[in-house]
Amino acid sequence: MNLHKVNLAEKLSLFSTHWSPKIVGELNGQQVKLVKLLGEFVWHSHADEDEMFFVIDGTLAMHLRDGVIKIYPGEFLIVPKGVEHKPVAEREVQLMLFEPAGTLNTGNQEGQLTSRNPEWI
Amino acid sequence: MNLHKVNLAEKLSLFSTHWSPKIVGELNGQQVKLVKLLGEFVWHSHADEDEMFFVIDGTLAMHLRDGVIKIYPGEFLIVPKGVEHKPVAEREVQLMLFEPAGTLNTGNQEGQLTSRNPEWI
Repeated sequence: MNLHKVNLAEKLSLFSTHWSPKIVGELNGQQVKLVKLLGEFVWHSHADEDEMFFVIDGTLAMHLRDGVIKIYPGEFLIVPKGVEHKPVAEREVQLMLFEPAGTLNTGNQEGQLTSRNPEWI
Repeated sequence: MNLHKVNLAEKLSLFSTHWSPKIVGELNGQQVKLVKLLGEFVWHSHADEDEMFFVIDGTLAMHLRDGVIKIYPGEFLIVPKGVEHKPVAEREVQLMLFEPAGTLNTGNQEGQLTSRNPEWI
């Protein structure tokens, strides 16, 4: 069998670092990533990439310039390119992300939290 | 607030027809679709599109020419372009799909089960 399914819980058990996305799939030039969040991220936007945040566990507070959207397990939010956002996780959040391969987690705000070469797990 | 989150359970409550994908999101030329399956689909492949099957509820038996992969809630399978597959759901399966906008559900096997213009819900 050439193809292998991916079990999210199993992959999530392989890492504990926050703000460090791991790649678990790729299709049509897009990547599927898993990431654990805790605390407050930086305000940023992506010039060319729309981003999808699918919450697996916890409550993600997505700060936007015109308000905050709370996203619970089984819900997702698509943040279009160019839209400033700041993810905040008061308690740990487990997320599945969809975005073009090569998308930087910090978008236009490279710095300490930038994950430059996310690894496949 | 310009952006709106999507709640999968809420969207899934809006339809009951099987094999009729509904669009719930779009990003980077890709669409997020929800679909309910029951029974056996047709063998088909997609010449240009990779497809991701994320199981929300039920057990999806993905038949491939070299075997069957059973996919449970919280798991996904990416079927690369060109790979023949046949989804089978002995009991109802609720799925989230990721694929390029315009992907035909029956790929190269247009027929009775083809969903030509999936609607947004």
